[in-house]
Amino acid sequence: MAKEMKVERITDMEKDFAQWYTDVCTKAELIDYSSIKGMFIYRPYGYAIWENIQRLMDIEFKKTGAENVYMPMLIPESLLQKEKDHVEGFAPECAWVTMGGSDKLEERYCIRPTSETLFCEHYKNIIQSHRDLPKMYNQWCSVLRWEKTSRPFLRHREFLWQEGHTMHATAEEAMEETQRMLNVYADFCEDVLAMPVTRGQKTEKEKFNGAEATYTIECMMHDRKALQAGTSHYFGDGFARAFDITFTDSNNQRVYPHQTSWGVSTRLIGGIIMTHGDNNGLVLPPKIAPIQVIVVPVAAHKPGVTEAAAQLRDALAEAGLRVKLDDSDNSLGWKCAQWEMKGVPLRVEIGPRDIENGQCCMVRRDNREKSFVAVADAAESAKALLEQVHKSLYERALKNREENTYVAHSLEEAKALQDEHGGFIKTMWCEDPECEKRMKDEAGMSSRCMPFAQEHLGDVCAICGKPARKMIYWGVAY
Amino acid sequence: MAKEMKVERITDMEKDFAQWYTDVCTKAELIDYSSIKGMFIYRPYGYAIWENIQRLMDIEFKKTGAENVYMPMLIPESLLQKEKDHVEGFAPECAWVTMGGSDKLEERYCIRPTSETLFCEHYKNIIQSHRDLPKMYNQWCSVLRWEKTSRPFLRHREFLWQEGHTMHATAEEAMEETQRMLNVYADFCEDVLAMPVTRGQKTEKEKFNGAEATYTIECMMHDRKALQAGTSHYFGDGFARAFDITFTDSNNQRVYPHQTSWGVSTRLIGGIIMTHGDNNGLVLPPKIAPIQVIVVPVAAHKPGVTEAAAQLRDALAEAGLRVKLDDSDNSLGWKCAQWEMKGVPLRVEIGPRDIENGQCCMVRRDNREKSFVAVADAAESAKALLEQVHKSLYERALKNREENTYVAHSLEEAKALQDEHGGFIKTMWCEDPECEKRMKDEAGMSSRCMPFAQEHLGDVCAICGKPARKMIYWGVAY
Repeated sequence: MAKEMKVERITDMEKDFAQWYTDVCTKAELIDYSSIKGMFIYRPYGYAIWENIQRLMDIEFKKTGAENVYMPMLIPESLLQKEKDHVEGFAPECAWVTMGGSDKLEERYCIRPTSETLFCEHYKNIIQSHRDLPKMYNQWCSVLRWEKTSRPFLRHREFLWQEGHTMHATAEEAMEETQRMLNVYADFCEDVLAMPVTRGQKTEKEKFNGAEATYTIECMMHDRKALQAGTSHYFGDGFARAFDITFTDSNNQRVYPHQTSWGVSTRLIGGIIMTHGDNNGLVLPPKIAPIQVIVVPVAAHKPGVTEAAAQLRDALAEAGLRVKLDDSDNSLGWKCAQWEMKGVPLRVEIGPRDIENGQCCMVRRDNREKSFVAVADAAESAKALLEQVHKSLYERALKNREENTYVAHSLEEAKALQDEHGGFIKTMWCEDPECEKRMKDEAGMSSRCMPFAQEHLGDVCAICGKPARKMIYWGVAY
Repeated sequence: MAKEMKVERITDMEKDFAQWYTDVCTKAELIDYSSIKGMFIYRPYGYAIWENIQRLMDIEFKKTGAENVYMPMLIPESLLQKEKDHVEGFAPECAWVTMGGSDKLEERYCIRPTSETLFCEHYKNIIQSHRDLPKMYNQWCSVLRWEKTSRPFLRHREFLWQEGHTMHATAEEAMEETQRMLNVYADFCEDVLAMPVTRGQKTEKEKFNGAEATYTIECMMHDRKALQAGTSHYFGDGFARAFDITFTDSNNQRVYPHQTSWGVSTRLIGGIIMTHGDNNGLVLPPKIAPIQVIVVPVAAHKPGVTEAAAQLRDALAEAGLRVKLDDSDNSLGWKCAQWEMKGVPLRVEIGPRDIENGQCCMVRRDNREKSFVAVADAAESAKALLEQVHKSLYERALKNREENTYVAHSLEEAKALQDEHGGFIKTMWCEDPECEKRMKDEAGMSSRCMPFAQEHLGDVCAICGKPARKMIYWGVAY
């Protein structure tokens, strides 16, 4: 008996992008709501995507020499207050623990919104000599920020992330590390998630609380809004001074070390959804898809079909692919719709006629292109097709960004372009925060970054007309 | 120039076991103290042990069909209160969040001490039909329990663990799952951690808050105290009733599902330390050692030594071993002492004379046995030796347990045995909690478990003389 459930259609993204996004998150079973506003449940399929991101990214971190640690989740208020800019930025959105059991605590503790202060306290204990440097620690954990609004993956009160915190003997080494980790993120987004990124520096206004400089990778979503996908911060010796962390250098002088931090979060999953998804649901980049290939038997009641499908599954698994056989009693149509909704990059169908012909039918999720391949070549063909899916996803996303990046020479022009097309608007800028504020107030755009790949679009700031110092990207951001 | 640092001696375990334990935790760089009492920092070497445990155990979980998820870390007080026994057990040691930013919260939230209530709330949303069962979810996370005392790995206010929460259509299936997961833990402890376990059931008094039955694995430490290493709970339909979780069974009746939960924590690392460690420091079971083989060049300044050591390292790494070359400028004696402190299971030394003879010297951590092996056979020999280390560690621990398990026929005898020898004392028991209380009050021992492997030691309860129903193990526990 075929199940009677129907895969419900989701809202078209052209009609209501925000609703389309929420539909994908829930219908693809990535996430569920909890009873606390802004706190979400990562369901098995959504969490499996994060596990794949973790596993692959952790390998890249370890290649750079980073080591994983785990720090406490609570920060005493006095510790958070040691670095002035930092506490000003985070205190307004901290969740505070004030009771332990039935006792009121003498000092309140916040649940970590980020862990610079905890790492600094530990580094003070363990860094004494230049022989102890560099220290390159990372932790995978969740953090809490008591935000007013929320959105699956994009803005949670609690979200999963990793935070790297490193200490170096010199400013140069720390700056190199900041760049190195930004490049790890950028390469990961492009090579693994098929998301093209723009690498650049944040403005003074947009940089991290307590940092000297913040670098970012910015992505463009389907709806042409910007998503900040990862950041890497250079702190100089600001925290080291605030926490009195010093070491004896090779000249036997007591000096301050230089610090970085860098992080990405499950917001990357939001980025994947909005970069690759379509009106049939999620589209997953093959390298992080929990199921890379779904095998669906056609006319499964006919003799030999179930067995052939199982053999195909085994052959693909043997070749190292993450593969699943859907041998449920749902209808073929339901199965196809369900696995499209879940974004499985490749569907392999096999039925009686295919068996006769020694073939199977492979259907790409991204463009529904079908190809018939010999069963004997299934694994090789599947791998080649998955490669193609990755490449096509990347190219389509790159095209979206390139077609929606505009040059403007005045605030008015920038606003008109944003209002009409959306996307990234690039202009020259004098670096005055006042001009940045005007762009926000009058055109509704925040600065995204000053790209490393600078272009000369003119000599003057598009906003005030004074001499320009940087080319900058503006956009409406998640 | 050889570093002048000395590896400090640690306290002998015979002199002061508690101090020996703390010394190992800190000198092997497993853990550091934070500024909050009872909250610890898992340092890279300690955390790497946990990562290895996680990686290997997660494979076993997934073989049983478990899927990983991530639930919020906060539980609204009203949610925690839904199951009466559960809240009574945990509320006294909850850390409470009462402020979000500068706002007082309408309802206070506790940081999860365990997540039954959160899983139940989610299961209520996603379980409708018998087709939705079983649901077998697991999460790797940290939990908070506001305890008064603390000890590295054994009792933290915040500790890392995993918690499995499963729902089944029938009581039988849920009971099977409870047993299956206890066996996964037991096999893991024995096969991976080289820690022999006693499998059994907890008494009514010692079972988990809200459970119908709790099963446990109990290990014996060097000092003959007991360590509860993992537990698996059968809940019946108690939580399902409290949370109103029902499903339509195959007869179209609305019924309650049956539930389990199971967990192990970083307390396993404490168990490893106290089962295998010695007066030179940590001794790690090879399967979870972050470094399985340390290569130490002898007379590294002589020509060819550094190169030969690096080649050896490469050959061992090539064979899939976790290997490190210590090419620091520390003295040979310092290096040996340091890697012994860190419990690396195998040290490989190579010097000028070894190179001449085409050999290297392998030194086992557990018994310092040396063997000279041909460089060409190094990988194969190292693997065989690591196998032997695992086996020896297991056998030594088993011997410790067997030699320190005693039979008693009266409370007085039990007390005398515990006072003189420590260890497990086994007696017959009538199952009256009053007798259990007397054993605690008068002999200082808690019940450890009623082993699955029951023995008939007599007909009457050793405490009250009434008819006996079970053989039970008593001990002093961590």
